[in-house]
Amino acid sequence: MNFNLPDAIALLARTPATLSSLLRDLPDSWTQPNEGPKTWSPYDVVGHLISGELTDWIPRARMILEHGESKPFVPFDRFAQEKNSLGKSLPQLLDEFTRLRAENLRTLDSFHLQPADLNRRGTHPQLGVVTLSELLATWAVHDLTHLHQISRTLAHQYLDAVGPWQKFLGVLRCSAHSD
Amino acid sequence: MNFNLPDAIALLARTPATLSSLLRDLPDSWTQPNEGPKTWSPYDVVGHLISGELTDWIPRARMILEHGESKPFVPFDRFAQEKNSLGKSLPQLLDEFTRLRAENLRTLDSFHLQPADLNRRGTHPQLGVVTLSELLATWAVHDLTHLHQISRTLAHQYLDAVGPWQKFLGVLRCSAHSD
Repeated sequence: MNFNLPDAIALLARTPATLSSLLRDLPDSWTQPNEGPKTWSPYDVVGHLISGELTDWIPRARMILEHGESKPFVPFDRFAQEKNSLGKSLPQLLDEFTRLRAENLRTLDSFHLQPADLNRRGTHPQLGVVTLSELLATWAVHDLTHLHQISRTLAHQYLDAVGPWQKFLGVLRCSAHSD
Repeated sequence: MNFNLPDAIALLARTPATLSSLLRDLPDSWTQPNEGPKTWSPYDVVGHLISGELTDWIPRARMILEHGESKPFVPFDRFAQEKNSLGKSLPQLLDEFTRLRAENLRTLDSFHLQPADLNRRGTHPQLGVVTLSELLATWAVHDLTHLHQISRTLAHQYLDAVGPWQKFLGVLRCSAHSD
């Protein structure tokens, strides 16, 4: 499937409601545990998605549109949520993510991107030259990689509870963690 | 985390709204493609979840409560959706899943399960002796394995579109498919 801006926006627009449906008011026994040392709970993941809205996707799109390849992106701080989420409840984080995502999609719309703009190039600090369409596709797949992670992390809590069914359930064998 | 009936129900009750938030009215370009031969699209998965509501979870719980280990479960037809979904739109399937899940959770409630009931045993045609709590935990994790699959299948459509970011996105490397 080729990148297509309306399709990408359709997915990006749905993530806040998807996560709210899944996680809002779910007992802490599901949303607070992680998969072990140096892994994230569903609560941590929502904080990380907020960081992306604040510092990654739209600021990088703007960097491509304003500076092209001349100015590399600021590296994404994958641990910013440790500070940003402090003292906030999961419903508060979900509200914040919902608001920021809506604002960012309005900003994206305000760029009035034309098909040719999608090929405009920027510089990623590790990956080198990337295009605007690759950045926007990654924004959508980044949502999906974290939905994938949240479903795996929730399932992990019942690793023993499912007894012999463990071997039929792919999610309990997934080792495809994001870098 | 030990099995706990209210926690399991909290998850089971959320899946229809989660899938509706993610998939309802999402363009067909996302919901119809699969991951290649013999894999399922998000549309196929919703049909499969409907089959589980019709023939698997509650009928098996009832079998444990009424017959114990004496009568093995009917094997789960993992391809029943090929017939059941025929001619139905994805929104229709989501509505059907939502209705059936709500009915099944009302039936579960009507069993008035006591803690000791959770240890009651049944016979799985392949796995042998299983308990009611293992069956109910598996019902919840089965939802999660298919949410995990749907997020992976959606992401797969942008495997090329993300360009060099591919290597950072765990969901694009997941091979943890359910049996």
